Amino acid sequence: MTTGVWLIGARGSLATTVACGLLGLRRGLVAPTGCTTSALDLGEVFPNWDDLVLGGHDVVTTPLEKRAEQLVDGGVVPQHVFAAVRAELAEVERALRPGYDPLTWPGSQADAVARLAADIEGFRVEHDLDRVVVVNVSSTEAPVVPRPEHADLAALDHLLADPGERVLPPSSIAAYAALHAGCAYVDFTPSTGIRIPALTDLALREGLPYAGSDGKTGQTLVRSVLAPMFEARALRVRSWAGTNLLGGGDGASLAAPDRAAAKLASKSGVLAPDIEAPLHIDNVPSLGERKIAWDHVAFEGFLGARMSLQFTWEGYDSGLAAPLVLDLARLVAGAHAAGEAGPLSRLGFFFKDPLGGTGHNLFAQARELAEWAESLEGGGDRC
Amino acid sequence: MTTGVWLIGARGSLATTVACGLLGLRRGLVAPTGCTTSALDLGEVFPNWDDLVLGGHDVVTTPLEKRAEQLVDGGVVPQHVFAAVRAELAEVERALRPGYDPLTWPGSQADAVARLAADIEGFRVEHDLDRVVVVNVSSTEAPVVPRPEHADLAALDHLLADPGERVLPPSSIAAYAALHAGCAYVDFTPSTGIRIPALTDLALREGLPYAGSDGKTGQTLVRSVLAPMFEARALRVRSWAGTNLLGGGDGASLAAPDRAAAKLASKSGVLAPDIEAPLHIDNVPSLGERKIAWDHVAFEGFLGARMSLQFTWEGYDSGLAAPLVLDLARLVAGAHAAGEAGPLSRLGFFFKDPLGGTGHNLFAQARELAEWAESLEGGGDRC
Amino acid sequence: MTTGVWLIGARGSLATTVACGLLGLRRGLVAPTGCTTSALDLGEVFPNWDDLVLGGHDVVTTPLEKRAEQLVDGGVVPQHVFAAVRAELAEVERALRPGYDPLTWPGSQADAVARLAADIEGFRVEHDLDRVVVVNVSSTEAPVVPRPEHADLAALDHLLADPGERVLPPSSIAAYAALHAGCAYVDFTPSTGIRIPALTDLALREGLPYAGSDGKTGQTLVRSVLAPMFEARALRVRSWAGTNLLGGGDGASLAAPDRAAAKLASKSGVLAPDIEAPLHIDNVPSLGERKIAWDHVAFEGFLGARMSLQFTWEGYDSGLAAPLVLDLARLVAGAHAAGEAGPLSRLGFFFKDPLGGTGHNLFAQARELAEWAESLEGGGDRC
Amino acid sequence: MTTGVWLIGARGSLATTVACGLLGLRRGLVAPTGCTTSALDLGEVFPNWDDLVLGGHDVVTTPLEKRAEQLVDGGVVPQHVFAAVRAELAEVERALRPGYDPLTWPGSQADAVARLAADIEGFRVEHDLDRVVVVNVSSTEAPVVPRPEHADLAALDHLLADPGERVLPPSSIAAYAALHAGCAYVDFTPSTGIRIPALTDLALREGLPYAGSDGKTGQTLVRSVLAPMFEARALRVRSWAGTNLLGGGDGASLAAPDRAAAKLASKSGVLAPDIEAPLHIDNVPSLGERKIAWDHVAFEGFLGARMSLQFTWEGYDSGLAAPLVLDLARLVAGAHAAGEAGPLSRLGFFFKDPLGGTGHNLFAQARELAEWAESLEGGGDRC
Repeated sequence: MTTGVWLIGARGSLATTVACGLLGLRRGLVAPTGCTTSALDLGEVFPNWDDLVLGGHDVVTTPLEKRAEQLVDGGVVPQHVFAAVRAELAEVERALRPGYDPLTWPGSQADAVARLAADIEGFRVEHDLDRVVVVNVSSTEAPVVPRPEHADLAALDHLLADPGERVLPPSSIAAYAALHAGCAYVDFTPSTGIRIPALTDLALREGLPYAGSDGKTGQTLVRSVLAPMFEARALRVRSWAGTNLLGGGDGASLAAPDRAAAKLASKSGVLAPDIEAPLHIDNVPSLGERKIAWDHVAFEGFLGARMSLQFTWEGYDSGLAAPLVLDLARLVAGAHAAGEAGPLSRLGFFFKDPLGGTGHNLFAQARELAEWAESLEGGGDRC
Repeated sequence: MTTGVWLIGARGSLATTVACGLLGLRRGLVAPTGCTTSALDLGEVFPNWDDLVLGGHDVVTTPLEKRAEQLVDGGVVPQHVFAAVRAELAEVERALRPGYDPLTWPGSQADAVARLAADIEGFRVEHDLDRVVVVNVSSTEAPVVPRPEHADLAALDHLLADPGERVLPPSSIAAYAALHAGCAYVDFTPSTGIRIPALTDLALREGLPYAGSDGKTGQTLVRSVLAPMFEARALRVRSWAGTNLLGGGDGASLAAPDRAAAKLASKSGVLAPDIEAPLHIDNVPSLGERKIAWDHVAFEGFLGARMSLQFTWEGYDSGLAAPLVLDLARLVAGAHAAGEAGPLSRLGFFFKDPLGGTGHNLFAQARELAEWAESLEGGGDRC
Repeated sequence: MTTGVWLIGARGSLATTVACGLLGLRRGLVAPTGCTTSALDLGEVFPNWDDLVLGGHDVVTTPLEKRAEQLVDGGVVPQHVFAAVRAELAEVERALRPGYDPLTWPGSQADAVARLAADIEGFRVEHDLDRVVVVNVSSTEAPVVPRPEHADLAALDHLLADPGERVLPPSSIAAYAALHAGCAYVDFTPSTGIRIPALTDLALREGLPYAGSDGKTGQTLVRSVLAPMFEARALRVRSWAGTNLLGGGDGASLAAPDRAAAKLASKSGVLAPDIEAPLHIDNVPSLGERKIAWDHVAFEGFLGARMSLQFTWEGYDSGLAAPLVLDLARLVAGAHAAGEAGPLSRLGFFFKDPLGGTGHNLFAQARELAEWAESLEGGGDRC
Repeated sequence: MTTGVWLIGARGSLATTVACGLLGLRRGLVAPTGCTTSALDLGEVFPNWDDLVLGGHDVVTTPLEKRAEQLVDGGVVPQHVFAAVRAELAEVERALRPGYDPLTWPGSQADAVARLAADIEGFRVEHDLDRVVVVNVSSTEAPVVPRPEHADLAALDHLLADPGERVLPPSSIAAYAALHAGCAYVDFTPSTGIRIPALTDLALREGLPYAGSDGKTGQTLVRSVLAPMFEARALRVRSWAGTNLLGGGDGASLAAPDRAAAKLASKSGVLAPDIEAPLHIDNVPSLGERKIAWDHVAFEGFLGARMSLQFTWEGYDSGLAAPLVLDLARLVAGAHAAGEAGPLSRLGFFFKDPLGGTGHNLFAQARELAEWAESLEGGGDRC
């Protein structure tokens, strides 16, 4: 059951970490640390590490090998892993295609969708894949202004065909291309992606599953266990202030206030709305691949006593996200194989802003995930 | 369904906070912040705040009112609550009796058990109580050296009758007295208490329930959600170092290395045994009623990347513990009323070192608790 | 040598803390904790605590006693101090006058200067004071757009006389009034105040000293010893990120982005300009009188090793600032008595953004201060 | 002016970092980050980086190259620096000699002193060195029980000649050997070293300078600016609790309580004796070369308000210490060249427990150091 993993943003830090990590996993050089699916007892409907083949789009042209070297210098990828997988990285390099850049693309957006879909189909044919999962790991976009045409596929197609129009952001062009090519779609960023009514309708109609949004890798992960802790103990949270310091590409792209807005909105769901919760994202390039988050929670205990909890999380963004991308590729491919369509609401475990989820308690989400994976396996067996 | 709550250590900071808080709750001056049972839909088998009557033993003689004033100065009890409940505190004062002090007690330990049990029975009769729950909130004792007689009630009774013997620590004398008086027993400390085989056998035989050990109020509470978080995400924790700074009486009593040993053992269960986990408890009297805990967790992510999480928890020990004591009094009284006997293993939510529990994940414990409370209510209804 | 201390913002948290603290100090109820001048061996040219008389302007009308009660609830002023000084607070209350509010003031700004100066002169006469020091402790203003008239007193006076003009912000009106009344002026905020060329020229001409800007009470205080530490050890600071959480009035006033800009500019001077130094101020009303600052410093050691220092500072804003206001009143009164005029550049110890200072190393500033105070004493003696 | 730097513990992490760093500095591959002497304007009496030649003793036999590889893996030494200096490391390797191990040494301690001194003299002759500075960077020893013979060189020599006696710890044998060989001695550890009255008398008599004790590299460095900050601002520190987490060899050697005692004593001087100051050192091997310190300072401000400062310092122990060792080699060699003898009390800047120092304020120490270095230069010129 060979499965393609087509990464939007395939030359970025995260995609390159995914590539080095997957190749290292297959050679037994890397433990599946951080890979939740390694702990689940997944059935045959789900592909294994050996079944995955990587490809993708990117608007930049940095060679994968060069990016990988930067990740070695940045402490994300160990030197010996890089040395061992270098040759295979070149194979991944050959499966990469130029992405859609709205500033330089000469034609209509419909042409872009067609070109991207053709790339993905070519990848499937060339590697004789059973299916392909498209995962968006590119830079966060600014939120999109809704337009009436977003809710109606025919009207949307009409606008897309107009070379002077740019009705969809690049992440949604990628999502549309994925559907066009008959692929499942995962949004690991807070960008709009498939969250355009006309596209989600289309996915349902085409029987394609999708998942998102925005991988939960650090501050929000911790919040998704601490906020329920305060609730379970009936402690009254008064304020929950947070700061994020990001180096690397993520920090740079989030330095733009409109992109930060998308990210901040995505992060805010885990806390109750009545809590004072200032939140910042700062670009600190000298941190390199590292990211640091500080949270301060002021809460009241019995008799109104003022207490506090603060935490600092320090990690490597790509190192935290890459195993989740690999997990999602396996799980969404399995869902597709099992015939699931539409939003995969049982994958909230992975996301800051889960599609159709039922709350933000990480352990409730973990249970939901395990039950779903088991049910899917049974379903798959019945096929 | 009037229920007595008999506190061992009834003049300490925690017991006094329990008293001020309960009286304040009843007058509507205090919200049930930190009281988990307020969020549960408890059935008729459980007493309400209005049903609880306080009494207890203590070896010190500080008047309750004086201790309460210290708690006002220390920021634990608000001035206006103290002013409002002052008169009722005097009623609680009248229900306090001298505790058992092994250094000054003239007779045998059997005499002590009889005297303490008689005090509790007198309290029950005087206040016309349906039942009494005995809760140990006194200072932590050093661990006890096991003796063969601990496993055999007849042999134990023989030794207890010998005025020259001190075969049981004070917390176990209190537990024995509780059983003698037909009462349920809760150990909110890591002291030995009822954890003497002859006593737990007796409890079962007498149809009396008990719960413990060591209320989970801060550092261990946070650990009981963070350690499962790392596990859920397959992140590899390498070390988990902790420091506790305690003012107040708890800090002073834990300054003795043998008592600290009991506490440290109680706290260690929540982490996997292969983790490097140095842990300290420091007595810092100038902190007053506050306690501060710092934890540093070093963990590995994908590709072996070194990451860390650290947190600082700052709170008022008595303010964190008091609502749990009140919750436990209600829940254990309900269990007694419903006919439960022996260890209440479904109350792990409240304890650092739960009796017969099934792991340390706070949310699993919360679910267990809610299911148990609901089942009990049904059972109670059937009576 | 009786000295008036005329506070702009006299009904605010800081001014009220100054009042309660000074009255408590005089009664021996309060130790001079935080008062640097208590450790200096000040000469006769400087007034003592007993020599100080309080008065001031404010645009709000909250009674001082009510504000003091809020400070008792907020943990800044102890109940017993408030109870002891209540009667004397009423005397301070009688010395307060309505401040200048540009939105409601009916006349020209020149009229406002005259009215405010008359208030101060009346205070001096009524209390038979040798001199008055005016200290601005009101809310931070937005930065002022420079105008050519700011550099020329005649032109400025011309505009000030025009009822339709608002050429100066309130803090500068207060500074002008201070000079008009022959008083020294201190700016404890980052507002413009006396920093209008025409006003600083006037101060020099009139032989009046002034000091500022923006009291250094927490995060910047710590930075003023840590930044020189890194420098002394030749460690290379790469980034220094900071977050401030403020309750109370300061947080509310700094929630306005233009006011925050003034504060952030004032705070930034202590770090070298080539350091990546994102800095935030958040308004978190539920923190009450408390403020919390977190700083994260990423630095390089030998062989390029990446290291970090982070700190969290938690305090009561008014409790940190009040002793500095009292210190400054004594020191600036002494400077005035000794015949100093113009900017008091040796008082950088107290300020985030010192006037004419020589760097930000706190210990260099402390030495400078001690030498200056000693020289002044000598100078004063010679008079 | 060629100068030998003879390291006791020459195969340890610190010594190996010193070697890689010095060789890298000379090739221009490494900036002098962390080297205070690079910022000083040192005169001709002091050797330059190019003048230093490395050698040393060690009781272990791990090849320097292997240790350096471990430091590359541990993140202390960059791969490219290691690759560039590998050949020269082999030269340093040839200058290493077996150290004195009291457990295996067959003869008297006098023989050991003679053997070690002969090694150092051989090094000096072979490399045609003007002088040699001996620096102890070996593992911390337990404190030594004073004996009367320690105060009298003749009596000490008598005992040293007895093969059955072990009157001095290894660090003092090394110090004695240094004096024997006419060398200055520096103790970068809290071990006893030269602090034996008979040895310090001998140093004075022989005209040899010495310095120590215990390099100030992290927690104590930060304390040496923060404690004076609180003092300068008249804030009242109530408690100052600290925890240290150490991986690497230092953590392992300090896991022994008696050795930790030496370290803790050395660290405690910087705080006033009336402060509650619990302090721990924990061995956490999985941290590798990293060390982490957390400090919590509880202090009182004006009106008794309770405030706190906490900090976390995270660094690489060897990376912090190595530049100080290089600085000390240069400075102490200069002192020797200039004719200074006995304790170098002006080097407190570098030490946790300075010999004959005048307080712990880092900036006072920095000034003292700069003045001393300048005076020495002048003095050297006069020779």
